[in-house]
Amino acid sequence: MQSGQMIKEEVWSFLFEDCADPASNAGKFLFGGKGSALANMTKLGFPVPPGFVITTDCCKAYHRNEKVIPDGLWPQVMAQLATVEAKLGKRFGDAENPLLVSVRSGSAFSMPGMMDTILNLGLNDETVAALATQTGDERFAWDAYRRFISLFAQIVIRIPHEKFEKILDRYKADGRQDTDITTDELKEIVAAYKRIVLVEGRMNFPEDVQKQLRMAIAAVFDSWMGKRAVDYRRVHRISGDLGTAVNVQAMVFGNLGEASGTGVCFTRNPSTGEKALYGEYLLNAQGEDVVAGIRTPLPISVLEEQMSEVYAQLLELTDRLEQHYHDMQDIEFTIERGKLFILQTRAGKRTGAASVKIAVAMVQEGLIDRKTALQRVSPEHLDQLLHPTIDPSANEEPIATGLPASPGAAQGIVVLDPDDAEEMVKQGHQVILVRRETSPDDFHGMVVAEAILTQRGGMTSHAAVVARGMGKPCVAGATDVNVNYAHNEFTVGDLTITRGEWLTVDGTTGHVFNGKVPTVQPQLGEDFEMLMTWADEVRRLKVRANADTGHDSEVARGYGAQGTGLCRTEHMFFEGDRLAVMREMILAPGLGEREKALAKLLPFQKRDFIEIFRAMNGQPVTVRLLDPPLHEFLPEKPELLERLTELKFSARSASPKEMDFLLDEIAEKRKLLRRVEILSEANPMLGLRGCRLGIVYPEVTRMQARAIFEAACEVRNDGIDVRVEVMIPLISTVEEFRDQAGLVREVAAQILKENGVEIEFLVGTMIELPRAALMADQIAAEADFFSFGTNDLTQTTLGLSRDDSGKFLPKYIEAKIYPDDPFQTLDQEGVGQLVKMAVERGRSVKPAIKLGICGEHGGDPRSIEFFDSIGLDYVSCSPFRIPIARLAAAQAALNRSDMK
Amino acid sequence: MQSGQMIKEEVWSFLFEDCADPASNAGKFLFGGKGSALANMTKLGFPVPPGFVITTDCCKAYHRNEKVIPDGLWPQVMAQLATVEAKLGKRFGDAENPLLVSVRSGSAFSMPGMMDTILNLGLNDETVAALATQTGDERFAWDAYRRFISLFAQIVIRIPHEKFEKILDRYKADGRQDTDITTDELKEIVAAYKRIVLVEGRMNFPEDVQKQLRMAIAAVFDSWMGKRAVDYRRVHRISGDLGTAVNVQAMVFGNLGEASGTGVCFTRNPSTGEKALYGEYLLNAQGEDVVAGIRTPLPISVLEEQMSEVYAQLLELTDRLEQHYHDMQDIEFTIERGKLFILQTRAGKRTGAASVKIAVAMVQEGLIDRKTALQRVSPEHLDQLLHPTIDPSANEEPIATGLPASPGAAQGIVVLDPDDAEEMVKQGHQVILVRRETSPDDFHGMVVAEAILTQRGGMTSHAAVVARGMGKPCVAGATDVNVNYAHNEFTVGDLTITRGEWLTVDGTTGHVFNGKVPTVQPQLGEDFEMLMTWADEVRRLKVRANADTGHDSEVARGYGAQGTGLCRTEHMFFEGDRLAVMREMILAPGLGEREKALAKLLPFQKRDFIEIFRAMNGQPVTVRLLDPPLHEFLPEKPELLERLTELKFSARSASPKEMDFLLDEIAEKRKLLRRVEILSEANPMLGLRGCRLGIVYPEVTRMQARAIFEAACEVRNDGIDVRVEVMIPLISTVEEFRDQAGLVREVAAQILKENGVEIEFLVGTMIELPRAALMADQIAAEADFFSFGTNDLTQTTLGLSRDDSGKFLPKYIEAKIYPDDPFQTLDQEGVGQLVKMAVERGRSVKPAIKLGICGEHGGDPRSIEFFDSIGLDYVSCSPFRIPIARLAAAQAALNRSDMK
Repeated sequence: MQSGQMIKEEVWSFLFEDCADPASNAGKFLFGGKGSALANMTKLGFPVPPGFVITTDCCKAYHRNEKVIPDGLWPQVMAQLATVEAKLGKRFGDAENPLLVSVRSGSAFSMPGMMDTILNLGLNDETVAALATQTGDERFAWDAYRRFISLFAQIVIRIPHEKFEKILDRYKADGRQDTDITTDELKEIVAAYKRIVLVEGRMNFPEDVQKQLRMAIAAVFDSWMGKRAVDYRRVHRISGDLGTAVNVQAMVFGNLGEASGTGVCFTRNPSTGEKALYGEYLLNAQGEDVVAGIRTPLPISVLEEQMSEVYAQLLELTDRLEQHYHDMQDIEFTIERGKLFILQTRAGKRTGAASVKIAVAMVQEGLIDRKTALQRVSPEHLDQLLHPTIDPSANEEPIATGLPASPGAAQGIVVLDPDDAEEMVKQGHQVILVRRETSPDDFHGMVVAEAILTQRGGMTSHAAVVARGMGKPCVAGATDVNVNYAHNEFTVGDLTITRGEWLTVDGTTGHVFNGKVPTVQPQLGEDFEMLMTWADEVRRLKVRANADTGHDSEVARGYGAQGTGLCRTEHMFFEGDRLAVMREMILAPGLGEREKALAKLLPFQKRDFIEIFRAMNGQPVTVRLLDPPLHEFLPEKPELLERLTELKFSARSASPKEMDFLLDEIAEKRKLLRRVEILSEANPMLGLRGCRLGIVYPEVTRMQARAIFEAACEVRNDGIDVRVEVMIPLISTVEEFRDQAGLVREVAAQILKENGVEIEFLVGTMIELPRAALMADQIAAEADFFSFGTNDLTQTTLGLSRDDSGKFLPKYIEAKIYPDDPFQTLDQEGVGQLVKMAVERGRSVKPAIKLGICGEHGGDPRSIEFFDSIGLDYVSCSPFRIPIARLAAAQAALNRSDMK
Repeated sequence: MQSGQMIKEEVWSFLFEDCADPASNAGKFLFGGKGSALANMTKLGFPVPPGFVITTDCCKAYHRNEKVIPDGLWPQVMAQLATVEAKLGKRFGDAENPLLVSVRSGSAFSMPGMMDTILNLGLNDETVAALATQTGDERFAWDAYRRFISLFAQIVIRIPHEKFEKILDRYKADGRQDTDITTDELKEIVAAYKRIVLVEGRMNFPEDVQKQLRMAIAAVFDSWMGKRAVDYRRVHRISGDLGTAVNVQAMVFGNLGEASGTGVCFTRNPSTGEKALYGEYLLNAQGEDVVAGIRTPLPISVLEEQMSEVYAQLLELTDRLEQHYHDMQDIEFTIERGKLFILQTRAGKRTGAASVKIAVAMVQEGLIDRKTALQRVSPEHLDQLLHPTIDPSANEEPIATGLPASPGAAQGIVVLDPDDAEEMVKQGHQVILVRRETSPDDFHGMVVAEAILTQRGGMTSHAAVVARGMGKPCVAGATDVNVNYAHNEFTVGDLTITRGEWLTVDGTTGHVFNGKVPTVQPQLGEDFEMLMTWADEVRRLKVRANADTGHDSEVARGYGAQGTGLCRTEHMFFEGDRLAVMREMILAPGLGEREKALAKLLPFQKRDFIEIFRAMNGQPVTVRLLDPPLHEFLPEKPELLERLTELKFSARSASPKEMDFLLDEIAEKRKLLRRVEILSEANPMLGLRGCRLGIVYPEVTRMQARAIFEAACEVRNDGIDVRVEVMIPLISTVEEFRDQAGLVREVAAQILKENGVEIEFLVGTMIELPRAALMADQIAAEADFFSFGTNDLTQTTLGLSRDDSGKFLPKYIEAKIYPDDPFQTLDQEGVGQLVKMAVERGRSVKPAIKLGICGEHGGDPRSIEFFDSIGLDYVSCSPFRIPIARLAAAQAALNRSDMK
């Protein structure tokens, strides 16, 4: 572009009042968030200091053009500066009545790591004197100059902060405060600062105010491509093409005496949602003083007493802003000698509780409609409402972090042994069970514990699954924790925590805290119920629960479950008595013995099903047949071997009487060991489990079918509307399904006939192996429903064991090899392809086939949006995620209709 | 159908001479194999006893019509019987000159479990007398009658065989032979047999010969749906709709004195393929006598001396049959009083060696063309030629059967310890290493052993993989074997085999034999080479080898490998010295230590690559980067724990001096245990392995790339034409590939530059996870080649661990849930879909992308046909399967061109 002869002049910069349509989406992208808000408020007649915004397009041009500011920009800036000067009757760089400006970056998305703010730009040796005269406060002027030089030097010239701190510290020796520094000392400091600029920056501090502005604008542009900003964008998947805008705005001063001040306020309480101005301020201070926390700010209500008119004006303005933006606002303001200025407004961050309360209240106030209210609440935010959380005001540092295996926070005294846990709870203590990892043998300890912490194991480890099932907090795989059973303690680095000491764990974040950190109990109020009702009106997807007991089923219905999507029968076998019988079944030498043990298990299962069917009266219950490999019910080999070696050594020095006992025990342990060895698998995930168990041991399937349908008949006779769906797990071929479904249908028919009861039931399958997805058409011909087991489908499609991936998954996500944890948010690109394929192929054969999903993704909002888009009938998730799923399903439906 | 008024009369039965086009495929299906051959020979003028065939269509109609013989059949049978009677001047059921017939089943595929043969049908109390007169041999006639009744009663009336045996045994008491039984006694026996029919069969033995025939025909039809036949068809996937034909043929007698006889012969030697009539016969005998083995048959050559004319005629006829059918024939004949009759001809079964020799010889004789020769040899048959086999004449029963983990047969004395193995071999013994399972620690013992037998582990267990790599026989997972290290023995049921006893194992079949069973050494002659040359002319698919050492690479080239498709670098780390350094690397506490250990491994790897590149001069070598999880290189946890417990107990009673030593060892073992625990995985198959290792430890990838390219530069300087293809394992996202390929290309560029050498090389990936197949388009954009790792792809697609599936896979295959072992023959329906998808998606982005397969399916003929059909460039298999793959690839190409 030739500067002398411009064909088409591009406009790179706009006065706030000249910005076209600043509140629109396009406006936000062109002027950035901050510029858009300032322009909008200016146009609405708010008291905003005058200024202009240099567009993001200019930033883009700058980077395209090898970091040269476009020729057209400067004349525009000069012209707009002149307008600002005219408005205020001041002149930029003027030795008598100087205009000072702030320079701030502002992109479409707020982004840490970018240049923040340079204040007081326009000061130099001449203008500082003028400022002193203007304000009648020489000390103020030199303090402003000092601050400006150090900020400019740091941000624009990139001289480390510490260099300037050191100088200042010298003047603050002997307990002196900032405010104790005299004007003369400030002058010395300014001189010293300039020397630093010369030595470290190899340049004179620019006295030319235009040069200051030019340099500051370029620095903002440069910060867009700074390492931290680039990293942040990569992680948050923000395009690098957006660019940042630059806001140049006349300075106003909150530090011109006791009639001046600065503050931040929210139009509603961001913690509770209460409708009342909430915030804090400081008199005679600049914005950075509030942030720095040198003085303690006052609550905004105090301002009413101190400056009642200003407060009234603030109330009115902030209320107008909320009305205008239809959302709770986070507002920055400054009072200069009694005059109020608004410097920024944006949607305020809020807690989950506030989020719900505000959304519902605004509907009731007629400020927004229900759909908007539904979109306003982040589903994940609801999690805060459903579990106890660490009190945000506690501000404790965690001593270790593991996997957030089951949400909620809890405290208790540390115990490392399940028997000990029971004993301590009997004595009235509340305990946290800390284990290297848990096994079925630990179940009784887990039942009584407030929370569980394990050193090893992933998101589907025994501890994690059982804890989630019980709705109990669990942090799993906290690898920094070193459990030492022998000493009844655990260590984290140098720290040793012994049995009996207090510990707090937060299963929502994976944090572990030393001692007793205060927690906040969940509250579900009317607002929550109201929001859920609106969500239910909007959503197409049904939401079911993964619930294995009558109690869980009741909890789930309380949260609005429309049935059970996954009832895992194996969890019924882990409790005390049952585990023993289960082992008897597994250790049975032949069919006869096995059937005897199964007969003992039958009443347990039946009783459980009766409770579940009652709780889910009128809603479908999907019961999955036994799924995990049998060795999960047995003790582990290393422990058995260790015990056996111990016994053998004891036998060496045993008395004849002891010997008999020892030999018996050795024989028994040997038998157990042999069976454990036979059942042990190299890759249990891919071993003898799921329908394979039922094919090898059809008597197990028969017993389970019998328990299900006997229970169904019994509750039906009590007038319960029972809707049974039997689910065959781990199908990969239609032949497997035919085999197992045949057995179930045969037993069902027999029992229904025996009982003279007619119950309609479905027999379907999990789609949890890639081959099942590929063969979905064949399988659909035989199956009444599909339920996508996206946990296992993710494991097999990605070749990724959830229990083992902890070692490299963080690295993978950090390096963006995976965009997200694929066990949390469905890998739509890969696994999603298979799910979609299965849906299409299944429906091609049986258009009305019932389709659901019961993996953990069923409670993940982003995944739910996907499941909605491909037309599943329902998602199923753990009871405590049901409200989240209901809201996410509603949002998915709204997004879908938006797209149309 | 109304019997009185037939609109269209269906023809259910044909005289042999009236069968249309019997040798065609349609003819074979309509008349069955036997009927087709008899009809064809009749039409060609061979001396075949006259008769007719009732078609398979009739059998189908019979079963469709609730087991009622179609009305139209009987008049046709009567008419054709009349023709036969006229030809021979005899009459069916005639009291003076009776016609006797045989009734045999015959379907398109030969099938055990179906009714075989009823001889002498037409005998009753009247005709037996006539037969006596006719033949002048009353004893013969009554003996025939006795045989007929018992056969008829067993097969048609279904009376157990034993009932008749018991009677006969009474007459054979005191060492009397069949032949010692007098005519009068035979008459008594006949009477007794008839009483059995009356009592057991609740019917009189049918004297009416037409009723006999009707019943026999129905019995043949019934046997088609008999349990054994149905089972057989299910297993061999033969359609139940085919039906069986029934052959009714005039009897000829080989037992009418010393001028009569019966025999079986092959036109060429079925063991060696030698071109000479081969077979055996008995004079004065019926067919069943030859089979029953009561008298020892004579070699066919003796017939020349005994009946030179008949022999000459037989030679001429069998030669004509071979000429006619263009294949080696298996022929049944009978001589009745000097007159030769041919009763059956079919393609003869043969050994692998004979198969090759005959195919090649027939081409040279101009009997068949090369393409036919290639189709004649079953690829699996070649396996016999490539490994020692159990001598088929040995007839030993195996004591146990495991998985056929690595083919070949071998004998040796049993050792249970790898050190012992080394020691015994040093002393000049040959040994079989028997282990519960093997680990890298056993490697030195495996190297010296003739073969390996393990109690546990699957087809990809350590033992299996290492043995296949070494081309050494291995039977893995022989679960009936109980290894007892403490007693230095193993048991199988009641049998105990102690160290030092002889054992024979057959890795081709999985059989284990007690003692020293003779084996046959493989022979590859000129015929084999010739056949391979023809195969190479025809095939499109290239064949490469899975070879990890220079030695294996040489062996592979000897078998015709066109490069290495898979060089597994990890196997290089299992040998003595290297394993120690590898462990050092794994146990390294940080990057520095790890790099030191890697620097020690580098020269080992480099040396290996140099040998491999030399051996594969001019051919591509695909090197796969480190793939298995690191804990595979460490001792196992249970063993460590056991040892640790022992040490602790020893420490209790140790002297102070011993104590120091013990404590050191305990500390060391503890450290190792801790690392093993950290590295141990719930599902190693899906854990930290493949490219994940290289992403977490980039220094490992760097070392491997360095070793590869330094070796390449070195051999290139020696004039070797080196073609490197580096393969990144276990890719599931393009990001993983980009990361690792980037590292490899960077190191390669640097080393090539340092050495001033230019080598073109490729960097590609395995497609072995479902997600990789789904993302093949993205990956192809970056990768130079794909190699399908169908082992792992099968494991993940089916959710099936190869090591663990042994427990239920047999049941699955038996129950036809899987048609085949999916690890042996590719699951085309499921896994094949993903392979095809990846091929299509990969080529859509990069049409010239190189595509191969290196899973074990690369050596499986049926899978090779599939790989050919979807257009892969090459298959890669273990060296000993290369000839099989070459032949299978040729057959695939021929089948493809046939289809066009």
